[in-house]
Amino acid sequence: MWRELLPIGRHPDSHGYRRFAWTGVDLECRAWFKEQAEGRGLAYEVDRNGNQWAWLGDPDAGDAVVTGSHLDSVPDGGAFDGPLGVVSSFAALDELLDRGVDFTKPLAIVNFGDEEGARFGLACVGSRLTSGQLTVEGAHKLTDGDGVSLPRAMEAAGYDPEGIGADHERLGRIGAFVELHVEQGRALDLSGDRVGIASAIWPHGRWRFDFRGEANHAGTTRLVDRRDPMLSYAETVLAARREAELAGAVATFGKISVEPNGVNAIPSLVRGWLDSRAEDQASLDRVVGGIETAAREYAAAHGIDLDIVRESFTPVVEFDHALRDELARILGKHTDITVPVLGTGAGHDAGILSGTIPTAMLFVRNPTGISHSPAEFAAEDDCVAGVTALADVLEGLACT
Amino acid sequence: MWRELLPIGRHPDSHGYRRFAWTGVDLECRAWFKEQAEGRGLAYEVDRNGNQWAWLGDPDAGDAVVTGSHLDSVPDGGAFDGPLGVVSSFAALDELLDRGVDFTKPLAIVNFGDEEGARFGLACVGSRLTSGQLTVEGAHKLTDGDGVSLPRAMEAAGYDPEGIGADHERLGRIGAFVELHVEQGRALDLSGDRVGIASAIWPHGRWRFDFRGEANHAGTTRLVDRRDPMLSYAETVLAARREAELAGAVATFGKISVEPNGVNAIPSLVRGWLDSRAEDQASLDRVVGGIETAAREYAAAHGIDLDIVRESFTPVVEFDHALRDELARILGKHTDITVPVLGTGAGHDAGILSGTIPTAMLFVRNPTGISHSPAEFAAEDDCVAGVTALADVLEGLACT
Repeated sequence: MWRELLPIGRHPDSHGYRRFAWTGVDLECRAWFKEQAEGRGLAYEVDRNGNQWAWLGDPDAGDAVVTGSHLDSVPDGGAFDGPLGVVSSFAALDELLDRGVDFTKPLAIVNFGDEEGARFGLACVGSRLTSGQLTVEGAHKLTDGDGVSLPRAMEAAGYDPEGIGADHERLGRIGAFVELHVEQGRALDLSGDRVGIASAIWPHGRWRFDFRGEANHAGTTRLVDRRDPMLSYAETVLAARREAELAGAVATFGKISVEPNGVNAIPSLVRGWLDSRAEDQASLDRVVGGIETAAREYAAAHGIDLDIVRESFTPVVEFDHALRDELARILGKHTDITVPVLGTGAGHDAGILSGTIPTAMLFVRNPTGISHSPAEFAAEDDCVAGVTALADVLEGLACT
Repeated sequence: MWRELLPIGRHPDSHGYRRFAWTGVDLECRAWFKEQAEGRGLAYEVDRNGNQWAWLGDPDAGDAVVTGSHLDSVPDGGAFDGPLGVVSSFAALDELLDRGVDFTKPLAIVNFGDEEGARFGLACVGSRLTSGQLTVEGAHKLTDGDGVSLPRAMEAAGYDPEGIGADHERLGRIGAFVELHVEQGRALDLSGDRVGIASAIWPHGRWRFDFRGEANHAGTTRLVDRRDPMLSYAETVLAARREAELAGAVATFGKISVEPNGVNAIPSLVRGWLDSRAEDQASLDRVVGGIETAAREYAAAHGIDLDIVRESFTPVVEFDHALRDELARILGKHTDITVPVLGTGAGHDAGILSGTIPTAMLFVRNPTGISHSPAEFAAEDDCVAGVTALADVLEGLACT
């Protein structure tokens, strides 16, 4: 099953995956999903937003247990982010059928469309549309790098975009959604566990720091006469690292824009973007507040004007506590030990759906923590342990 | 004279000058030069490389005294860089004719073409061609942003490019070249002098620092697992400032390129360009050596691979000592007091010609030090003092 999926959309040079929504490669992945569903005698359907479903039992019976993830990728992504959850779902179902369990609730496997947002710039389009977090008008405004809109892209791929929009009736049938995913950090590697349960997704945000000084000749302007914004920027980069270390959080300056960006010109503007995430809101406020204070002091010392703009912010996502505890009980471990708090971005369909239905996530160990890269990896033993854990969870939720 | 030149090529929005070589605006400036020459009854000629000359006396007599500068500009440059030297040359000649001096040597005023290199990317094309520092083949390879080659641009402007190349016979006629220029720093402002004599142009160079780390997710990668090149870059920016301060030199990181330059991505590559200049070679070696050592230590501490490449280097330009001392004697001041060492780039035609003929430079006070900007300025009193000084120098050199 895994081997059939591996070659699809793999770039021959980078060895990374380029599985972008509604492209030919995405359609190949979707054909694979349909084949897996029909090969097991599951009822296959595509919902109004293009998400794929495979049902065991009567969808209309309600209180369904759903698992799954996504098959699309970031540019030059790894093999595991997304597909591991879908493949593990089918494998867990096979395991349950082998065990000969009796299902008391309907079970479904889902492939949410366009989770990574690599083509249209917005993540989790499939689950956002279904939950109503992305409006139809908003979806019509999404365009790819060639100016093709999302509806036209769906149409070109042979899907009818007329009916897209919130699908409360469909979500109303679901009692619990569990998404298995490769971990995007090293928490499990450090704790020595193969599989963990998510308790929350850290609050996170992006802040733009505009350091404005005075452009001047780099060869003829004395140091004391300069208002060089690169110095305050550099000091702020180092302050961000210190503040994050103190709080056990993360803070990163990964994007920069400089004007005029000439070798012999003192910059007039250095614009840096801060990405910061922490375990809870208070910690994040402390980290970002500390960086802002330091940046303002540095800027004042160099005669630099500083504007700080919060460009985006996502509060903490707490997964359903009852479902999380139920998973911990099923997996036979104590929550204090086995529930890592995830320092991951909120870019999961489970995070989107957590506002509407009870959701939980299982994570499989990532020995390097590398993610969104061809080097992304999980060991076969750990993947098997993930399948077993997911089967245990599905049995516990759907067979009692 | 100054007022006629002021509106030419001034951009209505930026109020900066855009006088690029061989454009219509450049031709207007050239027409102004021809008019000034012919209006004074000087013999006007254009040499094989498009530089304009205005002669008083017989060029073939030899040992000529030449003054002048350039009329082109950087993008959105100021009014003084270049034109002040040409206008002051004509004004100084007027002053000498008023004084009724007897010329014992031929005198010429020159406008060197394409000094700033704003269009074809190479500075001092006119003087480089004439002195043989730019070959004919090299000149044919120069193209502007639209792909137009230098010869085609000259042709389009009505000049014959067939004869371009070294012109040793012409330079052989010249006994001394004196260029007056607005200062591009604040040395005269700080010493309280209106006019100064250049002794040297600082050695300077450009170095590219490639800090290579590992791209990873900014939200999920623990700080201790990161190889973030932005941190080493930031530390190096601050080290450059410290080393320059210690040595009384300048060091600037004004240009940067980051990959992948994403808000939520730890960079894989931060490429920063260092521009550094110092009074002498030993000081420059000490500054750049100190920065390199610090950068390598920072990189090693963060697991970053660092490559440092020297992209360009210009050794110190020492203006002719005898001519410099002669100027100081003429201006009636002691060299120890009145000869500022210039922290300017070697972007002067006088610097190019100094390898072939005796050259000297006079600088006029710049109260802000701002250069290559619409805010570039020199006070009228100081400009008048510059004209008087230039007239004194020309009288001293050509009338004895």
